Amino acid sequence: MEKLKERIRSEGRILPGNIIKVDGFLNHRVDTVLMDEIAEEFKKYFDISKVTMVLTAEASGIALAMACAGKYGVPMVFAKKAKSDNIEGGLYQSDIYSYTYKKKVTLLVSQDWIKSTDRVLIVDDFMANGEAMRGLCDIVAKAGATLEGIGIAVEKGFQHGGDRLREAGQNIHSLAIIESTEGGTITFRDGT
Amino acid sequence: MEKLKERIRSEGRILPGNIIKVDGFLNHRVDTVLMDEIAEEFKKYFDISKVTMVLTAEASGIALAMACAGKYGVPMVFAKKAKSDNIEGGLYQSDIYSYTYKKKVTLLVSQDWIKSTDRVLIVDDFMANGEAMRGLCDIVAKAGATLEGIGIAVEKGFQHGGDRLREAGQNIHSLAIIESTEGGTITFRDGT
Repeated sequence: MEKLKERIRSEGRILPGNIIKVDGFLNHRVDTVLMDEIAEEFKKYFDISKVTMVLTAEASGIALAMACAGKYGVPMVFAKKAKSDNIEGGLYQSDIYSYTYKKKVTLLVSQDWIKSTDRVLIVDDFMANGEAMRGLCDIVAKAGATLEGIGIAVEKGFQHGGDRLREAGQNIHSLAIIESTEGGTITFRDGT
Repeated sequence: MEKLKERIRSEGRILPGNIIKVDGFLNHRVDTVLMDEIAEEFKKYFDISKVTMVLTAEASGIALAMACAGKYGVPMVFAKKAKSDNIEGGLYQSDIYSYTYKKKVTLLVSQDWIKSTDRVLIVDDFMANGEAMRGLCDIVAKAGATLEGIGIAVEKGFQHGGDRLREAGQNIHSLAIIESTEGGTITFRDGT
């Protein structure tokens, strides 16, 4: 998606540890117009007419997932991380490793809000190692629901989380895949 | 807002500790149509034409804040909780007490994404003790920005966080104020 790549080129910053900061439009300050355009772009890759819910993981994924679910006219469900007093039993759970927080995190979705009849589009703003995606796919499988696809805005291709999901046969599309940040220059994978 | 109160009456559940669970449409599974209607309702109480950004706190507030910011055509900024590797210096901070997690939490907003020229609408899905609101107001003040108002979907009136903000002269409007859950019956404050 050329417009998204342009924003990453012009506003993205590379921090130590290969962290690519795009917090001016994607995951701290959120450009709502761009989110709407990304939601529209996903229609090229997924059969939205079949989707009954959009699933993401808290926190930053919620913004893009809301833009998508609002546009497609379906509910948005976000997996919670760790256990709070507001969640009791009846949960689908999946343990993932958070590279951001350097610890194990449990993704939780209430069994009330994902059913075997659901056709799920998983959406996230960012994918690196793909741990959150692995956990969300796991929860969809545990619910016996159908995974229609996985839509990602920005993928860090050199960390290969997306490649592992592609090799596993998942219907995943990322709108901008960053292949390299060598020399402080962001290079995108061909075809995104 | 009658429609919101109807949803709370028909789908809300009261858990031990006066927790009111509305996770089927507000803060786990999110009804995107209802969020859009709430965003529209806020127009009655705030001068949206002046608002330059919508501010909320992660995580569940992001959903309603996105619906509002998308409808009003402005960016959405969410305060992060605690410090991750993706945030470096240059932050406005405010310490709040999280009753949900029973610990101190620091709200963080990058100084890049809230300016003294901004006119801010703070939005949240739920308010109980008002700690998150207090922290967000504090951040708006630290940035020297103008607070246009505070829009809340569901307020737990009997915990008085909203009343404290009203007494402090804040322009706060909650669309459903729960006054009591005694006897397992949800009673709303008059006028909401």
